[in-house]
Amino acid sequence: MLNKERLGRVNRNLDQIGLRQMIITDPMAIFYLTGKKLYSGERFLGFLVGEDTEPVLFVNALMRFEEDLGVKVVYYMDSDPLTPILKKYVRPEEKLGVDKNMASHFLLDMIDDGVAAGYANGSLAVDRTRAVKDETEKEKMRRASRVNDLAMAQFKDLIHDGVTETEVASHMLDIYKSLGATGYSFSPIVAFGVNAADPHHMPDNTVVKEGDIVLFDVGCKVEDYCSDMTRTFFYKKEPDEKARRVYELVRKANDEAERQLRPGMKLKDIDGIARGIITEGGYGPDFTHRLGHFIGLETHEFGDVSQANENPAEVGNIFSIEPGIYNKQDAGVRIEDLVIVTEDGCEVLNTYPKDIQVIGL
Amino acid sequence: MLNKERLGRVNRNLDQIGLRQMIITDPMAIFYLTGKKLYSGERFLGFLVGEDTEPVLFVNALMRFEEDLGVKVVYYMDSDPLTPILKKYVRPEEKLGVDKNMASHFLLDMIDDGVAAGYANGSLAVDRTRAVKDETEKEKMRRASRVNDLAMAQFKDLIHDGVTETEVASHMLDIYKSLGATGYSFSPIVAFGVNAADPHHMPDNTVVKEGDIVLFDVGCKVEDYCSDMTRTFFYKKEPDEKARRVYELVRKANDEAERQLRPGMKLKDIDGIARGIITEGGYGPDFTHRLGHFIGLETHEFGDVSQANENPAEVGNIFSIEPGIYNKQDAGVRIEDLVIVTEDGCEVLNTYPKDIQVIGL
Repeated sequence: MLNKERLGRVNRNLDQIGLRQMIITDPMAIFYLTGKKLYSGERFLGFLVGEDTEPVLFVNALMRFEEDLGVKVVYYMDSDPLTPILKKYVRPEEKLGVDKNMASHFLLDMIDDGVAAGYANGSLAVDRTRAVKDETEKEKMRRASRVNDLAMAQFKDLIHDGVTETEVASHMLDIYKSLGATGYSFSPIVAFGVNAADPHHMPDNTVVKEGDIVLFDVGCKVEDYCSDMTRTFFYKKEPDEKARRVYELVRKANDEAERQLRPGMKLKDIDGIARGIITEGGYGPDFTHRLGHFIGLETHEFGDVSQANENPAEVGNIFSIEPGIYNKQDAGVRIEDLVIVTEDGCEVLNTYPKDIQVIGL
Repeated sequence: MLNKERLGRVNRNLDQIGLRQMIITDPMAIFYLTGKKLYSGERFLGFLVGEDTEPVLFVNALMRFEEDLGVKVVYYMDSDPLTPILKKYVRPEEKLGVDKNMASHFLLDMIDDGVAAGYANGSLAVDRTRAVKDETEKEKMRRASRVNDLAMAQFKDLIHDGVTETEVASHMLDIYKSLGATGYSFSPIVAFGVNAADPHHMPDNTVVKEGDIVLFDVGCKVEDYCSDMTRTFFYKKEPDEKARRVYELVRKANDEAERQLRPGMKLKDIDGIARGIITEGGYGPDFTHRLGHFIGLETHEFGDVSQANENPAEVGNIFSIEPGIYNKQDAGVRIEDLVIVTEDGCEVLNTYPKDIQVIGL
């Protein structure tokens, strides 16, 4: 069903970037606005929006559906040329926004057939809207992270002598499903020992051994919304002095970023809090990625918490806070929570403990 | 390493559609031409080609590589605007071909910054080139289908009382890998009984029972090339009269299309041979899809064997011949081989028998 509040925000954001009409083609954005999952593969799928524009959904007749979404639906056949259909609804004297990732051949056809007076990338209007979560979305994000917290408690118990990373990973989907998730939000990272010093390590046949670091970076989907959390454990032995120091630095970077975050603060400055602590501790060059990414219906949404982002954090933004130190000699550690920006700070969605924890005992 | 013969064909095909320069952005097409697998996600990856154009590969610096591909490689940084870099190599007074699926925001930037004199969809030139396989590709396609033939013999032995479609499917990847494949070319279809009458059935918890049809539509990748074959078996019991008739009709449609195929014949007429036989047998409305699709580096490549395709079969084309009858009362049967079009007919890549076979005895 059409979400008028979200559509209203998209239209106002479009207006702000000088567009009064736009064709959205990203299926996830169309789901966000209409509640309808439509995947058309190579075929055109579009949603015309804009101030003073009657919303129209263009759908291939092969995907015909019965329900009333509260918007006009125009079906086309594979044999129908697209542009004459669009011309019935797009105002030709005005510029048309298009989706940043729309396949170029659709745009070339629109240009050749004079569908509009000009074309511009309008995705920013949709992305800005999706970056501010409404109450329904926040509640689903809380649920997804709650399942992730419960799952983490079970994941750590999968670690025992002789087990490999891939064996551990092979049990995760069932655990998520038993807790009510529908699937992964991304392919899980399980990293033992020095593998934890590779931020993008994929599970392999490495066998866990006493004294290893055990890192889980995992997430699931609940009611279409994504969770994402990282915890780093120690197998059967307390960390040595260096590993402990690395852990406590990352922990402090994570805690302080969450504690100091306020709406209106520049996203680069939130990154700066965590980066400053790690740099001061002497591990600056080993924190090789941004502090966080926005998340919602997709694990990586528009917006990040990085030195390049001058934009302010807004109430309703949801993103990850995931400092890490990747040092093959001393330790590889990452600690990640999701947070919702609130009026007076942030709500941390993950409650799984972040103290040093020795597992497998 | 740059494949000059393939690049030469792309350039000649471009010339034929009125383009002297094109930026290819499809990673698979870039792999086809350069032998280099580059996946850039949202970042720009492009290969400038064309007659009288020095080929240039544009790659994000994050994906820097050492090997010499025999082409000029231009690296850019995330902080570099793209169009000034393209302008150093694209001829501004000429039209520029772009990839049909290139993200629209790249095209909008090129248009705004006047990179070329105009823009057109140039993918046809690449697609036509890839549709004609060279000897190296043919040999890899033969190997992939040989593995598929060997695998089919093992797949049918996975069927026993009490087994479900998903259980059978769960063993397939290991069988493929044990035979030298690197993975699936598509998610395998295993269909028992009436499920075989759904051409796109996905394995579920259906348990096989005596008298069931057992349909496998399966394929693997060998050295990056795809196989794809369908066989339909009968579990523990000879088919009844109606099922036998359906099977023999599909078998005849498959055999005759392969026997009568000649280069120069319109692809729609090859579809017509199979469709005519099935229609004459009274099951025309139950053959609900095209006869075949082109295949190579991808399971579905540009080109199909359908009533809509007026183009001729060319020597070196590789496509599937996969007639089917989907009748819930009588039977669901599909029989599929891959073929290479040759000077005097075709070479059938699959040798797994197509006679009626009762399994599980």
